This record gives sequence, C-alpha cells and structure tokens, in this order.
Amino acid sequence: MSKLVGSIKEAIVKSGLKSGMCISFHHHLRGGDYVLNMVMDEIAGLGIKGLTINASSIHDGHAPLIKHMADGVVAGLETNYIGPVVGKAISEGGLAKPVLFRTHGGRASDLETGRCKIDVAFIAAPASDCMGNCSGKIGKSACGSLGYAFSDAMYADKVIVITDDLQEYPFTGFSIPENTVDFVVCVDAIGDPGGIVSGTTRVTKSPVSLKIADYAARAIDASGYLKDGFSFQTGAGGASLATAVFLKKIMQKKQVTGSYALGGITGYLVDMLHAGCFRALQDVQCFDLQAVESLRNDPGHMEISASQYAGPASKSSAVSSLDVAVLGATEIDVDFNVNVHTDSNGYIMGGSGGHSDAAQECKMTVIVAPLTRKRYSVVVDRVTCISTPGSTVDVLITQYGAAVNPRRPELLERFQRYGIPVADIHALKEQADRLNGIPEPLCRDGKRVVANVQYRDGRIIDRIYQV
Amino acid sequence: MSKLVGSIKEAIVKSGLKSGMCISFHHHLRGGDYVLNMVMDEIAGLGIKGLTINASSIHDGHAPLIKHMADGVVAGLETNYIGPVVGKAISEGGLAKPVLFRTHGGRASDLETGRCKIDVAFIAAPASDCMGNCSGKIGKSACGSLGYAFSDAMYADKVIVITDDLQEYPFTGFSIPENTVDFVVCVDAIGDPGGIVSGTTRVTKSPVSLKIADYAARAIDASGYLKDGFSFQTGAGGASLATAVFLKKIMQKKQVTGSYALGGITGYLVDMLHAGCFRALQDVQCFDLQAVESLRNDPGHMEISASQYAGPASKSSAVSSLDVAVLGATEIDVDFNVNVHTDSNGYIMGGSGGHSDAAQECKMTVIVAPLTRKRYSVVVDRVTCISTPGSTVDVLITQYGAAVNPRRPELLERFQRYGIPVADIHALKEQADRLNGIPEPLCRDGKRVVANVQYRDGRIIDRIYQV
Repeated sequence: MSKLVGSIKEAIVKSGLKSGMCISFHHHLRGGDYVLNMVMDEIAGLGIKGLTINASSIHDGHAPLIKHMADGVVAGLETNYIGPVVGKAISEGGLAKPVLFRTHGGRASDLETGRCKIDVAFIAAPASDCMGNCSGKIGKSACGSLGYAFSDAMYADKVIVITDDLQEYPFTGFSIPENTVDFVVCVDAIGDPGGIVSGTTRVTKSPVSLKIADYAARAIDASGYLKDGFSFQTGAGGASLATAVFLKKIMQKKQVTGSYALGGITGYLVDMLHAGCFRALQDVQCFDLQAVESLRNDPGHMEISASQYAGPASKSSAVSSLDVAVLGATEIDVDFNVNVHTDSNGYIMGGSGGHSDAAQECKMTVIVAPLTRKRYSVVVDRVTCISTPGSTVDVLITQYGAAVNPRRPELLERFQRYGIPVADIHALKEQADRLNGIPEPLCRDGKRVVANVQYRDGRIIDRIYQV
Repeated sequence: MSKLVGSIKEAIVKSGLKSGMCISFHHHLRGGDYVLNMVMDEIAGLGIKGLTINASSIHDGHAPLIKHMADGVVAGLETNYIGPVVGKAISEGGLAKPVLFRTHGGRASDLETGRCKIDVAFIAAPASDCMGNCSGKIGKSACGSLGYAFSDAMYADKVIVITDDLQEYPFTGFSIPENTVDFVVCVDAIGDPGGIVSGTTRVTKSPVSLKIADYAARAIDASGYLKDGFSFQTGAGGASLATAVFLKKIMQKKQVTGSYALGGITGYLVDMLHAGCFRALQDVQCFDLQAVESLRNDPGHMEISASQYAGPASKSSAVSSLDVAVLGATEIDVDFNVNVHTDSNGYIMGGSGGHSDAAQECKMTVIVAPLTRKRYSVVVDRVTCISTPGSTVDVLITQYGAAVNPRRPELLERFQRYGIPVADIHALKEQADRLNGIPEPLCRDGKRVVANVQYRDGRIIDRIYQV
C-alpha cells in the first residue's frame, strides 16, 4: 500500500473535489510557496468552480489567485492574513463573497469544533514518506514548524500531502502522522527556498524604529513582568524585532532567565535561547533559516500546533501563560483599538494572524508603531478596521514614548517612575493630526462589504468595505 | 494560570464527575500502575457510583477493581485486555454489565469517530508541566511511549494528568500537548518502576518455545517477505520474543535491512535497530527499560499513537504497511480462528490488544503456540472465543512445524521447499486430542454473557459467558 499518486491533478481527482467545496492551504512556505498556485491551476484546468479557500495566510506570491477569483474558480476566502497584492484586488471587489478573516488560534478552534469544515486540505510538506508521515524540519524546502497545518490534517475530509523530498517509510521525524493523510504527491519543488525563509532577519536601522524599540524594551523592564520565568512574544517586523535585541541586553544585564519566547520564531529569539534568556522556544512558525535549524536540532525548541499556540477553544495554549506580547499596528485609535487588516485608505494589506490571540491572553500587550507613516497618522480617532479590541491592548509605544490604556494606571506609574516619556493617547492623536491634517473619513455609503473580521470568540467585530 | 490542583480528589471534584459517567485510563505503567487504583479509591470515597471504565488494558495490579465492581462503583468496563485476576472475577459474574472488549486500534478509532465517549480521562504521565504538556519518556516512573493515551487526551471531555515529576513550563519534550488537558495533579508516585518496566526481557529457555521460535523465524525467511524493507511485529511472550532473536541472526546473515519493527517494543527490537536489521521502530508501548531509553535518545525510534499504530478508521496506520506479525494464542481452531481472550476453561485472562488489528492488516500472520499447554489442547475444533478471525490468520507454528491456512497454498509450498516440517491443522488437532483427550465442550446453557468481543470494524464477533 502506498498513497503516492503521480500528479497533483490525479490527487485532486481522487480526492473527489467538486465545485462549491472548501479546500485549505497553510502558509509555512510564506512568500516562496508554489503549492497554492500549482493546485489552483490544476483545479481551474479541471473546470471546478465556486470553491472556498480556507488558508492560514495569503501572500503576494499568490497573485494568480486574483485571476481564479475573477474566473469564478474561487468564490470565497477564509484566512487570517492577506498580503497587499491580493488584498488590493479583493478591496476593489475582485471576490464574489466577502472574505472571512479569522485569527491563527480561531482558525484552529473553528476546525476543531466543527464550526468550519474543510473538504480537501493541501499540505505542502518539505519532507514526507509515501504514507504521509511528514514534517517541515528537513528537505531542500525546509520551513521548520508545520504548526498551522496540524488542524487541517486532523479535521479535513481528505488530506493531500505535496512534497519535494520523499523519505523512506517510516519517516521517523514526522510532525503530522500518516493516519490523517489520504494521498501523497511528489513534485520537483514545493517552493522557492529564498522566499520560504530569509537567510538572516536584519534588524531595522531606522532611527525612529530603534527609538521605539528602546522604549518598548525599557517599558517591559519597568512593567514588573521581566523576572525569572518571563515569557515573551514578538514578531519579525522592524521595531518588534529590534525590541527583542534591546530586551536581550537588559535580560543579560539583569541575569533574568525567562521561560519561553513564542510566535513566529526568528534567529534573534534563537540567539536569546542560546544566551540563556529563555529556556524554551514555542514555535508555530519559523521566520528564518536559523530558526529552522534550531527547531531541527535543539530540544529546547518545540514545534507546536496552532491550537497549542493560541486556540480559544483549547483548554490552554501557549498564549495563556504569556507575559508580554510586542505587536504592530497600521492604526491605533484613542480607545486603543488596533487595525492590522487595512491601511488607512481601507485597502486590505494584512490580518490578525496571532495578533488578537496574543493580545487577549497575555498580561501586557505592547503595540509598537511610529506616530505617522508617510503622510498618514497611525494614531487616529477611530481605526478603519478593528482587528484587536482596545480592551486587550495595554500600551502604545511610539517614538515619543508610551501611551498607557487608562485600564492600566499601575503601568503608567511604573513607566513614569522608570523615566520613560509618557503621553496621553489623545495628545498623540492631536500631534499626528497637526503633522498630517485631520484625515478625511472613508466614505462607506453604498459600499459593498468585502470582508468580515471574526474575533477569536466567533463574533464578527468589524467589516471591511470595498474601496 | 496553572492547572495544578492539590489532590486527585480535588481534580475529580473539579472535573464534575458524576455517577453513571465514563472514565478512562491507559496502561503504559502496566503491572506497576498505581493511578487507576488511587483514582478509583477517591471516586469510591466520594460516593460516585455506576461508572463505566474505558481502559486500554486492565492488569493484575488492578485487583482492587473487583471490590469497586462488587460495590457498584464500577458498573461497566470497556477495554482491550484483562489480566487473569480481574478476568476471573468478571468471569464469575462480578460486574453488573458485560465487558466490551475492543482492540487497540478499534478503541482509538471509536473515540475518534465518537462511537464512544469519555467524560473524564485520567492520564498517568511520568513527566508533566503545570499546564499538562506531558510525556512518558523521562521521570522516575518513565514508561516510554504514551501512545494509547493520545486519543483519551484528544477526545475526553475533561482530562486530568497525574504525574510524579513536575517539569518547568513549558516542558519541551511533551508528547501530549497542554491544549488537551484540564487539570494536573502531582503525587508522590504514579507507579512502581519495577512493575512498569522490567530491566531486561529474558528470552525463554523452554526447548519447546525455542523450537517454535526457530521454525517461525525460518518460516518468515521462507515466506518471501524477508527482504530489504521488511517490516515486523512481535510481542514480548516467550516464543514471540525468541522468534525475534532467531530472526535477527537470519537477517544479519542475509544482510537484510528491514524498514521497521512495530508494536510493544522490547530491548531485543532495540538491538535489531542498532544492528541495522531495521531502520526504525514504531512504538506505541515500551515493554522494558532499554526500549524507554532508546525512545528517549534514538531518532530512529518513533512514538506513535494508537490511531497511528492500528486505527481501523485511520487513513492508514503502521499495520497497513506491515509484512509479518508474530502473535500468540491460548487456542486456535481448525479454521484458524484464534482465542486470546480466555483460557480453555472459559475464564477471561487476556484480550486482543493489537492482535486482530495486526492480523487483519499484515501480509502474513504467524501464530506461535505449543500444541498443548498443561493438559489443554491449544489446537482445537472450535475456539472458546473468537478474538481474531481465521480469515486473517495465515500460519500456525507449533513445535511440530507449520500448519498453513488453505487460503495461502503458496506459503505451504514455500515452507515445504525450504524444508520446514508442515502439518495439516486437522491432524494437529487430532494429535492434541490423542494427548489430552477430546475436551468436553463448555456448557453455556442459561449462562449470562459477561463480555462481548468487538472486532475492529465494530461488529460483535463473539460473546464470553459466565463460568
């Protein structure tokens, strides 16, 4: 018995995929992913129409989707993030149904509880045996963790693993087990290694970002959370990553041993593990080659599923024990609501990912963002789209210092005592307005809804309108 | 947030356990398990009654269950194996409802598909953090694989982890993740290491068993399956284990590199891995310390769940790729049906475990058994209980050579060509009768059914009657 089939097309036919069904993809190959496009081209060739795609993220490399949406091959999209290229097309009305945005944790829980259903999951796997025992840790297209694909494998009706490195059975290094897999296809390449992971993640040299990062690291130090057992999530964006660099110095100076760092893992977090700043890394996604290598080799670096990372239906998840999350924003308003879905013009160019998951669960959510970007205010009266409710956001750090949510007066006091410049968020908003002028509110009259934003508890908390 | 509670009693109360519910246990601590008894004593003390226990196996150390059955604390039992002590009590009518016997694979699949439901699962874990990330690989009570507990963790309403080695959070060596766990209890000892694993597994010195093992190994050699990529399951019983020892010599002489050995893993299979006879071990349960150590340290030794081992609802499992399984029998009849549930007197003293799972899926099922045991014929006209249907059994090896199922004439021919003594199974039955006399058929008239035997496809294939 072998599940190997000769081509993606054969696997699609054997899976019984029909028009109107729901298919899924994961995004661990990120900007380098070939699999979504290869699969969608075959599906289009087979004349299948009206599909819903449930993908953990959509990146700019998935631009061919725009044509499949226009041709009616794809009628619906459920995802946690959409990059600006596909985002622009959808914002201009390029998709029949409104997008359903979830969070990384919410997607896993919705699959687990049966709130959403996948008919056929396509799992890009950098290494797999002929029965579907597969992993992202090795292979020429190694991407590290396959955390977002675990729930797809477990809950989809049919599961197709697509690999470019066929291992002998049994592949003992599996992350996803054969008992969940229906078919295996071996192709020449599942992705472009250059786009899957960057060799190194460079820290920003922007003076504004470095200033923000410095303030953020000092705010964490001042918060009272930075002690032995400290846990920390940050992303790979400019100021976020730089915050980790500054924080490392503080932790080493103070000889603090944290428990774990979390989230998309970068070489900087790996360095912090090696430097003894943390005992463990909880890894749902690797952002660079150093992270991939560390996950492969370091027993302190653990691969976790999206449910284990942040599932709201989980009995607990890594974010449940999280002290501090450092997160970005395209906009933040005077009520501390954060927008990471659209830019100020209302164009889709992102998504929550794990943003609102981490913000709701951690002890202190720190948003790092400049006061303005180009000629747009980041601090605004009302965000264009609520991605993360202000009730779960504690601190905004801009280049002018910290603005603290009035819910957390004790943090304000700590920051002041520590000598971190603080500002009222309304004052920051006025300062931004003075620089950029008061932004014209976006006109939504008669505009179609192009996306609904589902919070991790299942509620639709905002809508995104056609531009 | 921590899930740690102060005692097993507190965990039971917090779980909401009520009379009439179903609770579960796994058997990785085997003869040394303290957890089932500790939990049942607390439950009895709380006045909870009429429970169904769904346990992967019941061992002789669980004799206190007999009193809990008599007192009405336990009304039902669903399991894959019952050792002779509790088996005798049930055979004599000691349990209110008939036992439901499943197979190791069938139990996992029934949980997965919702065919059965666990209200509260109690998971003995040799190492766990305060959030329930747990494993059997380390700790003073290390038992190795926790394969049979995976489905309990995933599908039970409430999951209580009971450990005697609390790890710092996050425990990166977890096998069962925190997102499935509700409560964690740390106790002094979850088991007696002497009973959990034996330091060494000794091969039989019985001349009859050695002769059987020699024939079995030669039959495997003759079968045509023993070539590169060969896969093999055997148990820890006398002749089964000895078969592995003889087979190792043949494999080394012929320089055959098998793909994997499977099942309950012993030091002998670990030796075969190290000797290059196999590339991998698929481990759903460790039988000795050497297996535990190997699972902890050797990347070729993989921990698998019961679903991945043998789930009939799995899309494939390790048994799907299995060439040869060497299995035992208390009785085998002229239609090759095998009994591993009762002795010839009809007393429950075992169960299928993975017997019928492996037999149905593998390419050649070899039953190793002496012609007679004490004064009972092993080869009989009709087994007292059908555990594994004869349609899935290919060969019986006794000390008189091989009897081949008429379904497999090509095997008979191969064995004859190879010079293995062969005998018709009817002739063996007559030979046994000459030695022991024709056994009196067990009288079942008016006897109560004390157990139903559920095959891996869900059908009840036999009943066991009160003795």
